[in-house]
Amino acid sequence: MFKIKKKLKNKLGRVGEFITPNGIIETPAFIVVGTKAAVKSLSPEQVGNLGAQAVLGNTYHLYLQPGDDIIKKAGGLNKFMNWNGPTFTDSGGFQVFSLGAGFGSNENKFEFQKNISNHSLNISDKVQSVHTKLVKINEDGVEFRSCIDGSRHFFTPEKSIEIQNNIGADIIFAFDECVSSSAEYNYQKEAMERTHRWAKRSLNYNNNHRLEVQLSSGNKQALFGIVQGGKFEDLRKKSAKIIGKMDFDGFGIGGSFSKEGLDKTLHFVNDLLPKEKIKHLLGIGEPSDLFIGIENGIDSFDCVSPTRIARTGMLYTKHGRINIIKVKYSRDFSKIEDDCKCYTCENYTKAYLSHLFRAQEMFASTLASIHNLYFIVNLVKNIRQSILDEKFYELKEEFLKKYYE
Amino acid sequence: MFKIKKKLKNKLGRVGEFITPNGIIETPAFIVVGTKAAVKSLSPEQVGNLGAQAVLGNTYHLYLQPGDDIIKKAGGLNKFMNWNGPTFTDSGGFQVFSLGAGFGSNENKFEFQKNISNHSLNISDKVQSVHTKLVKINEDGVEFRSCIDGSRHFFTPEKSIEIQNNIGADIIFAFDECVSSSAEYNYQKEAMERTHRWAKRSLNYNNNHRLEVQLSSGNKQALFGIVQGGKFEDLRKKSAKIIGKMDFDGFGIGGSFSKEGLDKTLHFVNDLLPKEKIKHLLGIGEPSDLFIGIENGIDSFDCVSPTRIARTGMLYTKHGRINIIKVKYSRDFSKIEDDCKCYTCENYTKAYLSHLFRAQEMFASTLASIHNLYFIVNLVKNIRQSILDEKFYELKEEFLKKYYE
Repeated sequence: MFKIKKKLKNKLGRVGEFITPNGIIETPAFIVVGTKAAVKSLSPEQVGNLGAQAVLGNTYHLYLQPGDDIIKKAGGLNKFMNWNGPTFTDSGGFQVFSLGAGFGSNENKFEFQKNISNHSLNISDKVQSVHTKLVKINEDGVEFRSCIDGSRHFFTPEKSIEIQNNIGADIIFAFDECVSSSAEYNYQKEAMERTHRWAKRSLNYNNNHRLEVQLSSGNKQALFGIVQGGKFEDLRKKSAKIIGKMDFDGFGIGGSFSKEGLDKTLHFVNDLLPKEKIKHLLGIGEPSDLFIGIENGIDSFDCVSPTRIARTGMLYTKHGRINIIKVKYSRDFSKIEDDCKCYTCENYTKAYLSHLFRAQEMFASTLASIHNLYFIVNLVKNIRQSILDEKFYELKEEFLKKYYE
Repeated sequence: MFKIKKKLKNKLGRVGEFITPNGIIETPAFIVVGTKAAVKSLSPEQVGNLGAQAVLGNTYHLYLQPGDDIIKKAGGLNKFMNWNGPTFTDSGGFQVFSLGAGFGSNENKFEFQKNISNHSLNISDKVQSVHTKLVKINEDGVEFRSCIDGSRHFFTPEKSIEIQNNIGADIIFAFDECVSSSAEYNYQKEAMERTHRWAKRSLNYNNNHRLEVQLSSGNKQALFGIVQGGKFEDLRKKSAKIIGKMDFDGFGIGGSFSKEGLDKTLHFVNDLLPKEKIKHLLGIGEPSDLFIGIENGIDSFDCVSPTRIARTGMLYTKHGRINIIKVKYSRDFSKIEDDCKCYTCENYTKAYLSHLFRAQEMFASTLASIHNLYFIVNLVKNIRQSILDEKFYELKEEFLKKYYE
């Protein structure tokens, strides 16, 4: 259940609370990614101590390894991984297409830059052909290959929901077809329309089986529908209207965007979706995106970026990212940020962290991930507070000026 | 300063306390290895919570990376790594010869098995020739190559102590020549005699410089001499007599042993060394070795084994080691050990740990390392308590019967 506590004047932004069987999520919130039932390099206590409210696992990965039956037997995702708070699972749609079709490493939530648009047309054609070659889509569902051993698997909307019922997260997503950011209009439209039919089937299957899940675990899972349509305004509007009319507990906004058009797209999508329901922006979470998303009605975010870049030594600071491996940090005995209250900044110097990365110690990833997640999770908390204090625009201007200067 | 609290009747074993500038070490104690100023995959809080009293860093590695000058500027090893307790550094002797000469991965603290003794003669010759080729030893010191970039470096006893003074651990070791376990008698004798001359030089250098270290940091480092002599009884006895007469604060017993002769060797070495001083067995720490060592007068141990095998999925249990990656554990929702009080056993199942290893999650190493270190650190604590309770032999028989059955 979603309660709106305060609204941003003349905008769609709001402060709220989403109540789940495993606790309340104060929104706007950044949800920490724990793809394979673990936040990479962190203990659940470290995740909780940095201020995270909820963790998002991945249906595609958890189905392949360890298997949703094992997580069900363990008592569900949060018992399995020892996380005492709300959990999400995404539907596996994005991974089926990106990892299953083998375009994963080049895939991006934003379209290719305009200055390579001629080139991107060729990439688009190429991706589409790889896409259709390695992933077989029909009306029923998608055949894909495991990224672990190449074995063949078949996901339908019903299968995705069955797996997510087994995994037992508090918030689950309808199964969608996720299209490459460089795909052409006609294919985006075709995929979107299929996603709408799959949304209906996801909802029907869940309504028929959720009761059972509820009875056996004491949990009532929330099911979110996903809006698609890529970077095309007419498709996004159509998708928001159709998905918005279905009886979902909340909504995810998936697929790719044009970076310049993110604010406009999120505004008209969220304006068309039911206002009283929670909205999650899937897989996007750079600082500027967070301000744009929240201003335009997004209530929660997830993104692998804070932990992924942390493992390469890239750290967020108020003045932009720094690469801690640079030799200038090897004799820098100051904190990453003087006024940061994260565990890493409270106990370690840049020199130590720089050493750990150079020495290839695993603990480097732990300390860097704690700092980056703290930075993003607490940025969203500060944005939340700024709406309550009616100082959103001041914070936005001050933060973005420093960060991108 | 070392205080003996209780002795094992008719044996050399004892319970004691070693007072360092950063706290008391209750002996016998297992010292956790943090080679590069970090216990692999663990935070200092996780290390403290599992019961560890002290951490041992490595002079060779820390000299090469980040450099002892950086650790000195950071305020010493425990400030640099955020460990609020005693620290050790070994002298770098073992690493100079094992990593520097490139025989590291095959090197063992015990001699080759007898059933391959013909073969081992050939290996011995080969190792000796590699040894003398890549590491140039003269009376002054040793020239070796960095395991990171192949650059050339020269360690003398004075240089090793200077580095260890800079790193600023509570307990440091004299520089020794560490010979391959398969080396022949004449070479062991020659190396041992050089080690004795180097011990004297280490002690002299430290006596002339320790005062300065003491004044600048408020710390008085303890310097331990190292007994060498390999598997040869006459050499070990000679080394114990000569090193034992020097004015060290304690003693390390280094080099290699014959596995069957460990108890006898440790007995006569510790019987010849001054009884009132603390003795550390370098780099040995399998459960049976701990009982043998403590019974024969060893007060502290260090060994990479608990964390190294943990990272491969090998876990200690009272009934011997298990490999958690085995498929039979993937659906085993019990703890590693029902009565284990470690963080891992209190919060996670075998199925989860098995999944984390298969999914190649870093957190697998963290959980496995916590369990293995807890197992070994607390085994030594239990042995300590058994001496206080006059039940050492009962514990030894019961434990070893279960563990090796």
